[in-house]
Amino acid sequence: MLTNVEHIGIAVKNIASSNELFARLLGAEPYKSEAVESEGVATSFFRVKDTKIELLEATREDSPIAKFIEKRGEGVHHIAFEVDDLRVEIERLSLLGFTFLSETPKKGADNKMVVFLHPKSTNGVLVELCQEIK
Amino acid sequence: MLTNVEHIGIAVKNIASSNELFARLLGAEPYKSEAVESEGVATSFFRVKDTKIELLEATREDSPIAKFIEKRGEGVHHIAFEVDDLRVEIERLSLLGFTFLSETPKKGADNKMVVFLHPKSTNGVLVELCQEIK
Repeated sequence: MLTNVEHIGIAVKNIASSNELFARLLGAEPYKSEAVESEGVATSFFRVKDTKIELLEATREDSPIAKFIEKRGEGVHHIAFEVDDLRVEIERLSLLGFTFLSETPKKGADNKMVVFLHPKSTNGVLVELCQEIK
Repeated sequence: MLTNVEHIGIAVKNIASSNELFARLLGAEPYKSEAVESEGVATSFFRVKDTKIELLEATREDSPIAKFIEKRGEGVHHIAFEVDDLRVEIERLSLLGFTFLSETPKKGADNKMVVFLHPKSTNGVLVELCQEIK
């Protein structure tokens, strides 16, 4: 089961100025900043009720975020749904014909194990499934 | 105040097949379908906790959704935040330098008054503010 829109990931060119922009928009400062070395990104998080807004800036040229911005410009990068059990969901969705960018979950930002569905199987939306590490 | 991610709007080419796709992904059928003649769109809604997934298919060639898909393909079209008072938020955000696609709110889907911020002022994200009609 996909139980919540856990966060919305937004690709930005400059996380410092975008932090200010989203703080003005949302009326609150980011509550956390975190680098994810494996993905080559700097992130910051805002809270809106039960959903987070995650800003992502590339820290390397080969970062997926750098490639995304080069191709499409700044904007919504992915939608992340919370799940109770990643392995169960991967199996359920695989059987239904969905494909994944990687076969096994990896550690993402914000203390989560994450996996991405291939956007070709989800109407062009990059869908992340995430499960909190306990 | 932006109090909740009320919904995420996703532009699709064929709402019938996308309804099936998202029903498989989310594990639940759409709970509502609605046409918005003024915008030239057919919509359907799925619920994930307190956030809705809104699918949008163009019903006219001059629909904003037709233009979006022509330019960028299928994918996330807008992020809608719930607000308590649209007029107060429009004034607050205008004073902070945000610009809007229209000066006054109009009737959207799902019994809401809505207004869109210009994506140039929000990092390429098309942001909708919406308030339920009472």
